[in-house]
Amino acid sequence: MRKMSPFKLLISREKALEIVLSSVKPMDKKEKILLEEASGRVLAEDIVANENVPPFDRAAMDGYAVKAEDTYGASNFNPKTLKLTAVLHAGESTGTPVNKGECIRIATGCPVPPGANAVVMVEFTEENEGKVSIYKPVAPGANIAHKGEDIKKGETVLKNGDFLTPAKIGALAAVGRREVLVYQKPRVAVIPTGTEVREVGSELKEGQIYDVNSYTLTSILSENGALVTRSRIIPDSFEHLKSAVKQFLGHDLIVFSGGSSVGEKDLLVKIIEETGKIFFHGVQIKPGKPTLFGLVQGKPVFGMPGYPTSCLSNAYIFLVPAVRKIARLPPKNPRTVKAKMAKRMVSASGREQFLTVKLINGQAHPVFKQSGDITSMAEADGYIILPVNLDVIEEGEEVTITLFE
Amino acid sequence: MRKMSPFKLLISREKALEIVLSSVKPMDKKEKILLEEASGRVLAEDIVANENVPPFDRAAMDGYAVKAEDTYGASNFNPKTLKLTAVLHAGESTGTPVNKGECIRIATGCPVPPGANAVVMVEFTEENEGKVSIYKPVAPGANIAHKGEDIKKGETVLKNGDFLTPAKIGALAAVGRREVLVYQKPRVAVIPTGTEVREVGSELKEGQIYDVNSYTLTSILSENGALVTRSRIIPDSFEHLKSAVKQFLGHDLIVFSGGSSVGEKDLLVKIIEETGKIFFHGVQIKPGKPTLFGLVQGKPVFGMPGYPTSCLSNAYIFLVPAVRKIARLPPKNPRTVKAKMAKRMVSASGREQFLTVKLINGQAHPVFKQSGDITSMAEADGYIILPVNLDVIEEGEEVTITLFE
Repeated sequence: MRKMSPFKLLISREKALEIVLSSVKPMDKKEKILLEEASGRVLAEDIVANENVPPFDRAAMDGYAVKAEDTYGASNFNPKTLKLTAVLHAGESTGTPVNKGECIRIATGCPVPPGANAVVMVEFTEENEGKVSIYKPVAPGANIAHKGEDIKKGETVLKNGDFLTPAKIGALAAVGRREVLVYQKPRVAVIPTGTEVREVGSELKEGQIYDVNSYTLTSILSENGALVTRSRIIPDSFEHLKSAVKQFLGHDLIVFSGGSSVGEKDLLVKIIEETGKIFFHGVQIKPGKPTLFGLVQGKPVFGMPGYPTSCLSNAYIFLVPAVRKIARLPPKNPRTVKAKMAKRMVSASGREQFLTVKLINGQAHPVFKQSGDITSMAEADGYIILPVNLDVIEEGEEVTITLFE
Repeated sequence: MRKMSPFKLLISREKALEIVLSSVKPMDKKEKILLEEASGRVLAEDIVANENVPPFDRAAMDGYAVKAEDTYGASNFNPKTLKLTAVLHAGESTGTPVNKGECIRIATGCPVPPGANAVVMVEFTEENEGKVSIYKPVAPGANIAHKGEDIKKGETVLKNGDFLTPAKIGALAAVGRREVLVYQKPRVAVIPTGTEVREVGSELKEGQIYDVNSYTLTSILSENGALVTRSRIIPDSFEHLKSAVKQFLGHDLIVFSGGSSVGEKDLLVKIIEETGKIFFHGVQIKPGKPTLFGLVQGKPVFGMPGYPTSCLSNAYIFLVPAVRKIARLPPKNPRTVKAKMAKRMVSASGREQFLTVKLINGQAHPVFKQSGDITSMAEADGYIILPVNLDVIEEGEEVTITLFE
């Protein structure tokens, strides 16, 4: 007969997170992808510009390319008149120089013709039968975007490790990169366990429930840069669980969910102890105590609580920072808001409490039901973490809510 | 000869955004997708629970199913002793009732056997040769998760329009939904234009530059729920642009980028006026003035500035709210931080200014170069918007920075 042993060493959330973050390693596997797929990825090379951007001096405005000195003294009452010698539409260029007393009509983006050193905006001109009246003087360089002004040839535009935002995607396009080297997304195996757990969509028999955790975990992990493999549901037996660990060791992170009971968690503890090392097993937080973490052949393995709420709340607390570190993504930094408690709450003694709340008229209403209840998170706008040493939080007290977004 | 006409009626950013948001319509096309693909999507049906969750009274803890009254008066010094009549491992259930003076060992999640009305946690018990000592009394209902406690049969769990977060995905799994009806993602056509613009990866000839905007726009639109079709580059001619509008009218939103010059913009203005209606053409913001918006056969059409920075900054200002409204996504609400200006800045007169800044040691350093310079955004952490009537912002003045995230 299997002995049931209660959890022994609970560690604090901070300590647990510290252990997790110091145990997981950022990806070093790379892959080459097309620029249009690179948004939200992490660059795995320095990007050095092969050419200047812009590659030539160009008009920054629609107007007339001139010698600046020809415009000095121009005013509304005393315009300077120049001879129009050519017209450049968008995409056109010319070798015809602008000589003293001359100008060339130029569209934004066209190369500035030789001899010109400024562009007069069209707004300050009037064109009539080959003559252009200039109503405002310009300084040399005016309305010209100079060659290399944006990016100089040889300059390092982006660095290995940069997170590719829309603007950084733009910088890659500007230097003409069709393909880029990025870090591979971490491959994460999500393994639902539980003899009583059934695949969503199947018929439930007496005592059975649907697998919720593999869906919530896949959702939150994918949102945070992981490439998730959702395993079939593994029965709670030593052999099945052990072969699942072995099957998914090629992944960068293995996440078991389920095994909510002490006995089931013990199985996973034994398997990890046999093949690797357990770092913690039991965290001082409610809900979410039965969470374990270890390494097997250098691969991080999580055992998440079986209860949907505990599983997901600890996913926010531990899995998100872990997978983002592995993926080399910047920390999540979710938004927080301050609000007053809508009612008095008695806190869990001896453990931190992860309390989900709904914001109604700027007040924080607890929606925590039982740790098994997924609706306590589905209906919430965010959560507060009540400290270990807090017994009671009074109605009207100010709390900081971390938003689910 | 084409006449160059300057921009005439500039409208304010607020007014422009108001027009855009009142002109675009939320998607009504729906599609059925698998639960594992539903994360981040918007529900297009009410979800009513067909069954209770949990579907039966179950043990919320590992322990012993008992009649609560059999435990009354139990203490460390005066334990109550019950007869163990059965053992339920995870996934097991029994029809054997718990009679007075008896108990059944039960794993978390197992159905509570008939006759039992509470579970004593294993921590407060000792089992020895078929007898279980109970060291702590429990009240009726203790450590039992009741049938329907999370979700009641017939209850509306989620509503049409709900944004599917990981927790809401969990609620769908809990009620056994394998497939869900969601709103289709808006199909957005991104059409780069410009005779001088070349596809990234090709060889540049004199006067040519790479297409940057279709990449930045695809990136930001995809991040905000759009399914983007990136068109080939369209030359600046009336016929080409007109046939592009026609080609993409099946999309939910059409975004032209390029046509930075007045003349080129005029082409698009003419086409939209001919086939639909222009709402504005020219916004009181720097950079980003040459932005136009109209409707063609009820389909919203944007003409974004050709300069990469202006194009992307106006994408943050106008396109993101527009596409999120069409996609029925919640507003973006980017994070803001306060910082002091690292140096004095002279602002654009008569227009709001979108000023990109980098945060260094908590100070806001402007990185704005020219509106054509993509690096002024790629290197920035966020932006500030300087009001129309502001001439100068002094060093040390506090500003609110909207972060690019």
